[in-house]
Amino acid sequence: MNTVELIAKKRDGGELTRADIEHWIAGTVSGSIPDYQSSALLMAIRLQGMSDEETATLTDVMAHSGSMFTPEDLGGFTVDKHSTGGVGDTTTLVLIPLLAAAGMTVGKLSGRALGHTGGTIDKLESIPGFRTDLPRERFLELVRQAKLALADHTEDMVPADRILYELRDVTATVDSLPLIVASIMSKKIAGGAQGIVIDVKTGAGAFLPRLEDSRRLAESLVAIGAKLGRKMAALITDMSQPLGRMVGNALEVREAIDTLRGAGPDDLTDLCCELGSELLVFAGAATDRGAAIERLRGLLDDGSALAKFRELITNQGGDPSVIEDPSRLPHAEHTIDVAAPRGGTIRGLDALAVGHAANALGAGRTTKDDPIDPAVGVELVRKVGDPVGAGETLAILHANAVEPLDGAIATVTKAYDIDPAASDVAAPPLIVERIVRGG
Amino acid sequence: MNTVELIAKKRDGGELTRADIEHWIAGTVSGSIPDYQSSALLMAIRLQGMSDEETATLTDVMAHSGSMFTPEDLGGFTVDKHSTGGVGDTTTLVLIPLLAAAGMTVGKLSGRALGHTGGTIDKLESIPGFRTDLPRERFLELVRQAKLALADHTEDMVPADRILYELRDVTATVDSLPLIVASIMSKKIAGGAQGIVIDVKTGAGAFLPRLEDSRRLAESLVAIGAKLGRKMAALITDMSQPLGRMVGNALEVREAIDTLRGAGPDDLTDLCCELGSELLVFAGAATDRGAAIERLRGLLDDGSALAKFRELITNQGGDPSVIEDPSRLPHAEHTIDVAAPRGGTIRGLDALAVGHAANALGAGRTTKDDPIDPAVGVELVRKVGDPVGAGETLAILHANAVEPLDGAIATVTKAYDIDPAASDVAAPPLIVERIVRGG
Repeated sequence: MNTVELIAKKRDGGELTRADIEHWIAGTVSGSIPDYQSSALLMAIRLQGMSDEETATLTDVMAHSGSMFTPEDLGGFTVDKHSTGGVGDTTTLVLIPLLAAAGMTVGKLSGRALGHTGGTIDKLESIPGFRTDLPRERFLELVRQAKLALADHTEDMVPADRILYELRDVTATVDSLPLIVASIMSKKIAGGAQGIVIDVKTGAGAFLPRLEDSRRLAESLVAIGAKLGRKMAALITDMSQPLGRMVGNALEVREAIDTLRGAGPDDLTDLCCELGSELLVFAGAATDRGAAIERLRGLLDDGSALAKFRELITNQGGDPSVIEDPSRLPHAEHTIDVAAPRGGTIRGLDALAVGHAANALGAGRTTKDDPIDPAVGVELVRKVGDPVGAGETLAILHANAVEPLDGAIATVTKAYDIDPAASDVAAPPLIVERIVRGG
Repeated sequence: MNTVELIAKKRDGGELTRADIEHWIAGTVSGSIPDYQSSALLMAIRLQGMSDEETATLTDVMAHSGSMFTPEDLGGFTVDKHSTGGVGDTTTLVLIPLLAAAGMTVGKLSGRALGHTGGTIDKLESIPGFRTDLPRERFLELVRQAKLALADHTEDMVPADRILYELRDVTATVDSLPLIVASIMSKKIAGGAQGIVIDVKTGAGAFLPRLEDSRRLAESLVAIGAKLGRKMAALITDMSQPLGRMVGNALEVREAIDTLRGAGPDDLTDLCCELGSELLVFAGAATDRGAAIERLRGLLDDGSALAKFRELITNQGGDPSVIEDPSRLPHAEHTIDVAAPRGGTIRGLDALAVGHAANALGAGRTTKDDPIDPAVGVELVRKVGDPVGAGETLAILHANAVEPLDGAIATVTKAYDIDPAASDVAAPPLIVERIVRGG
């Protein structure tokens, strides 16, 4: 196999075979194919594209580039959920214990925050003592015992994705649909899930703000997962305004606890039940989505989901008393009201701007080695459709440093689009589209 | 300047500015831009192209990436000639002394053979003692004294081209028109020529066999050189059959000597005078091409060109007695006739096949570190349009090794297309097209 000929094939718009892709990925992981050849191939893929067949093969070969979990390793009906990243997106924190309470097997591998979007690992680590660096055997043991565990991605899983992602980041080849799909799905496949639900965000705060791009991504994720034998659902959901009311690590844990006891914000609760219902139907644990949603709401209301969350925290070394006493979570020194500059109705709330404000306060990171402050963030008192009087509170900033405050106040104030004339503004629909291939 | 944004600009079909290109080339030469970023950019250029403006800027910036010669360094009207590479292409050996005899300044930097095309440096080095590794000061001294010198490309000139060429070779980005043009022209610009003639070969033995590709290359070379203030001419010339009768290093030196004394093959003599005439007109040394050709033929016939060749050989440490006694050049142990399998008229003579046969005998190299045998090669006794009887000699192989002979005989036999019926076959026209921008 000649690597230059392989690059030339893609350069000329040809289709790579499984042997081609195996040669590339094996050479990438072993180092026998140098970065400068991979980056030329990545640019050729970025500009010439890949067929669904190629993308599925790339996904599969990448998934097999390191150690994996199989459904048999984990036991039961294994499920996973992925979000393309949003602002104040607390769904994973709620869904993990909720799905486990419904009898699904949830052995979840997750990541950290980067840019304006949060990371589940960071959020859970704001619980005192909570550990996500589980060795493989301990992770498997917890999944088999408790049906749930959550760990950081380990070095030995999907090494091809780590290498290629770093290379894409510095060669302007991040925004390639087949490469995005292979990166996401290879990790899901390697994680051993049989049923996978993807929350593809759309709107200002999303990775892909335009609906047509979100739709293309959702369709491709579902197609590739289905080709590889997984039951797949993708929901395209609104991220024009943040989800729920909390944006920030410990703040979102508090919101997840509220939601798990059945007292969370409606949008967050609804989305968790909608996403989870697809997986219950795949598992045969409900006859249809309506029944599944009813079942999941019951598990929130009767305390089962919260009990599972307590079990997760305890199993992974965390302090479960945060559930009864959220003041044991990190909390910020200062809370500052952001006042409405005029009265009216909230017509828009720019999720991206809120994300930037939370990051300015220290909730996120720009490069992967930046520290984060678990306590800080933005609490949204008012959201789209809410009325507000001039001088009333729009949001509350939770801050430790004083220096970024002025900027954050200005950013959050500007994020609110207040219409003095309108009195009846509907919030955008939460679920924009749904793509399912339950095969 | 952000390198990733620069790559993204070209990826999206945008136009790179001079500042962009200066950032890239400076970073490439200093090593601050890693190969994997350059190779992604090279692939983006390969797929998205470059405007003439960008290509001219790239050429200019590459030319300035190392040390240069200016026309003032060299003195007089400085000329250069470039060939895109052919089989048995002895024109440079003839043109250098011929142009110097006509009063032009010829400070020529040249290269070695690679693949099926020969290299002027290798040919001259077959003359016992001839040195091409001249230090800069010695090269300048010879050019100022004798109006001619020929040296190997030195490491300190156009380093950007060497680095990018190596990278293109392993990333399937060689066949990019703007990158080819910038590679060729940056070396010509750095060499200090005011008038440049390019011999763009077309047909089987050419780097670009198809006329439309040759034409596009010729037009771009002329356009870019003219944009950078050079007087430019490009002749698209036939390389469907080899030029002259000799293919091989010492064999071509013998043929050059014959031509320089006015007794060379017609096609080689004509092409040298045609190419040279453009430069004489640029220099104002002839009023038109007709007069220039007459002048150059006179310099071949009256011994002036040959005297300049003797001076070149002497100045660079070679043995000038090879001119009177070609047997002092390396010669092969065996000469083997290739006989015509049938009688008729030669309808075609595949230049590429002849080049492969000469290489099989040891005349060329596959990788840049291969040794070459200066003595071996192919002597074409018959060319297109010639009649031949069954069993008569088509060509003579000059060989040292016996083992490649059978293959070379078969290849050369097959290279001849003998038509038993035809009696009147015209050789293809030598000069197919001419593009001049004398500005």
